[in-house]
Amino acid sequence: MLTSSLSSFFCPTRIHLGLGAHEQLGPVLRSRGCQRVFIALDRALQGSDFYRRIEAILAAQGIATAVFTDIEADPSDTTVERAFATCQAHGATAILAVGGGSTMDVAKAVGILATNGGRIHDYEGIEKFGTPPLLRIAIPTTAGTGSEVSGSCVISDTTRHLKMSIRHAALNPADVAILDPLALTTMPGHVAAHSGLDAFVHAFEAYISRQSNPMTDALSLQAVELIAANIRPFVADRSNLEAGLNMLCGSALAGMVFGQTGLGNVHCMARFVGAFYHLSHGLSNALCLPHVAAFNLPAVPGKYARVARAMGCHVDGLPTLQAARQAVASIRELCEDLGIPPRLRDAGVTAERFEEMAALCTQAHYNRWNPRHTTTAEFLELFHKAY
Amino acid sequence: MLTSSLSSFFCPTRIHLGLGAHEQLGPVLRSRGCQRVFIALDRALQGSDFYRRIEAILAAQGIATAVFTDIEADPSDTTVERAFATCQAHGATAILAVGGGSTMDVAKAVGILATNGGRIHDYEGIEKFGTPPLLRIAIPTTAGTGSEVSGSCVISDTTRHLKMSIRHAALNPADVAILDPLALTTMPGHVAAHSGLDAFVHAFEAYISRQSNPMTDALSLQAVELIAANIRPFVADRSNLEAGLNMLCGSALAGMVFGQTGLGNVHCMARFVGAFYHLSHGLSNALCLPHVAAFNLPAVPGKYARVARAMGCHVDGLPTLQAARQAVASIRELCEDLGIPPRLRDAGVTAERFEEMAALCTQAHYNRWNPRHTTTAEFLELFHKAY
Repeated sequence: MLTSSLSSFFCPTRIHLGLGAHEQLGPVLRSRGCQRVFIALDRALQGSDFYRRIEAILAAQGIATAVFTDIEADPSDTTVERAFATCQAHGATAILAVGGGSTMDVAKAVGILATNGGRIHDYEGIEKFGTPPLLRIAIPTTAGTGSEVSGSCVISDTTRHLKMSIRHAALNPADVAILDPLALTTMPGHVAAHSGLDAFVHAFEAYISRQSNPMTDALSLQAVELIAANIRPFVADRSNLEAGLNMLCGSALAGMVFGQTGLGNVHCMARFVGAFYHLSHGLSNALCLPHVAAFNLPAVPGKYARVARAMGCHVDGLPTLQAARQAVASIRELCEDLGIPPRLRDAGVTAERFEEMAALCTQAHYNRWNPRHTTTAEFLELFHKAY
Repeated sequence: MLTSSLSSFFCPTRIHLGLGAHEQLGPVLRSRGCQRVFIALDRALQGSDFYRRIEAILAAQGIATAVFTDIEADPSDTTVERAFATCQAHGATAILAVGGGSTMDVAKAVGILATNGGRIHDYEGIEKFGTPPLLRIAIPTTAGTGSEVSGSCVISDTTRHLKMSIRHAALNPADVAILDPLALTTMPGHVAAHSGLDAFVHAFEAYISRQSNPMTDALSLQAVELIAANIRPFVADRSNLEAGLNMLCGSALAGMVFGQTGLGNVHCMARFVGAFYHLSHGLSNALCLPHVAAFNLPAVPGKYARVARAMGCHVDGLPTLQAARQAVASIRELCEDLGIPPRLRDAGVTAERFEEMAALCTQAHYNRWNPRHTTTAEFLELFHKAY
């Protein structure tokens, strides 16, 4: 730490958590005098028991709502524009997101446009807007992305065919996040597995990042522990409320830090796996994870030993390297137990574009954060190993 | 967790940390357009190398300062009034605290008065003021109180002879905290030990609190680990910068949570030990800690086992109770290693007021938070055991 550059930590989101935490929505809206609310809603939640509870709270407060559900995975600029038009037409003074990462990202983008004007493209990059967005309340219905507390949202540019990352550590996290395991109970098992592993990768890559510091280490390591201990029972049964709450806390803790530490080769490679083969972000990450974990071990064996302990391995008294190898083994087991295909080819990936993908990985410049410096040839080798 | 009431987590402070982090003071003041700054300064820092660096940064920015150093331990309402008069006469638009808990508490109180008017007594209690205080930047020079990120400040009422706690989770943490181990190097060893144990008790009591939740557990447990691993080398050598930074992070993590979880019997008993026998807050805590730790074990043995692991004990595979007992033993050793007198009598405490103190402990109502319900008779027994 002492040789690395200075770092900072900031999370402006007020978090309400616990079984039934969604009931805080009423007091939150009341205390802020909200009358007209734009709702970005994951279509899958429509008609669910959980969303009916939300509707009842809004109705009881006499709040006028406009609901927008036309949100795809990896949401596009045109989706944001339609959502924003709905929000504006409604005269909303607050935004509620009930959904996963895509839903929350659309809500965040709409909030930015509502107070800053222009198009969402204008705000691609770091701190490109200065006016606080419209009040944003997020109720995540997956435990994965951490978007409710992170400073970024990702929107696809349909003209340039790329993903825009809109980042602002102070102004882009939601104002209020409500973490309630009741919101997770209708999630399909594979979504629970893939999004949960996404959260695990956030925590793991943040912990071993070159830009980590003792403060971020505290949060990321505890996120590793919470996720590792709870993801199996949670995937097996999404109505396991204790596991669900712990998963929500783990993904939020990871979301608080990865924007500050950056991520690593798992996210770097997964980005192009997802884009080239149309796999979900979570699955793409999970497919790359065990291979990158093995590759990075030599850079930070002490941290891997600590990860092993956080994942429940008995490593007391073991030499560091031996303990570190248990982290890699545990990660492989975790992916197996959650039904992740062992090889990229099993998920429909073909090898012919690996050279192009390896070159893009190098250009993406994750060597800023990944603990082991990685060449294009090494990325290529990693893709082939994972294939 | 699932049976307890809902909880929340919020830390509005922007934290800069690392060796040399004090250099962030310039950019922080510049970005907020501060020209006139009121400085609450711990007298012990005056003329130190570290404070000279701060002065150089302020001078380089052409900032007009008014420095107030007349701050006692457990600062009083009259001190706050004098400090506020200085701040007002200077026309300050920002407040900088360079010092320990007392200094930061005065700075926080002055900031409240500057924008809310009235007397500090008007704001005793929870969320009794509504206007955001003057911009407050804290550079802690002890690793203990966590006041830079906590929502409370404590001011002595000289008329009623009691301590007023002024609390506001959203508005009372400092806006910016700068955690730089260079700020700690001139601290005397006994202050390092006593304030560091105060931070340890914050973390420990927050972790075992009835009001803890998975989010606060993450932070408090990591604070236990950071403090347990670093307090000995730090007390032995305050110029050990890596240990100092880890202590600052540990005390800040604890400061983020204890306002939300509440504390326990250690703080409860120490409050009256400190008040009746004029011992420092940190020492009073340290004297009570091993005895309360043993008393509370039966309530939460699983958490104690986790504390043992966080303190570096090899507990893999041990039965929970055996692992839990190692936490109590480790805490006792920690106090011994740091030169804490084993008994209250060794610190000048006499036994004749124990009945009165035990009654006050019950009235203070820490049973809301302490994991083992405690009667007045049990408080009395604890005082006698510690005596």
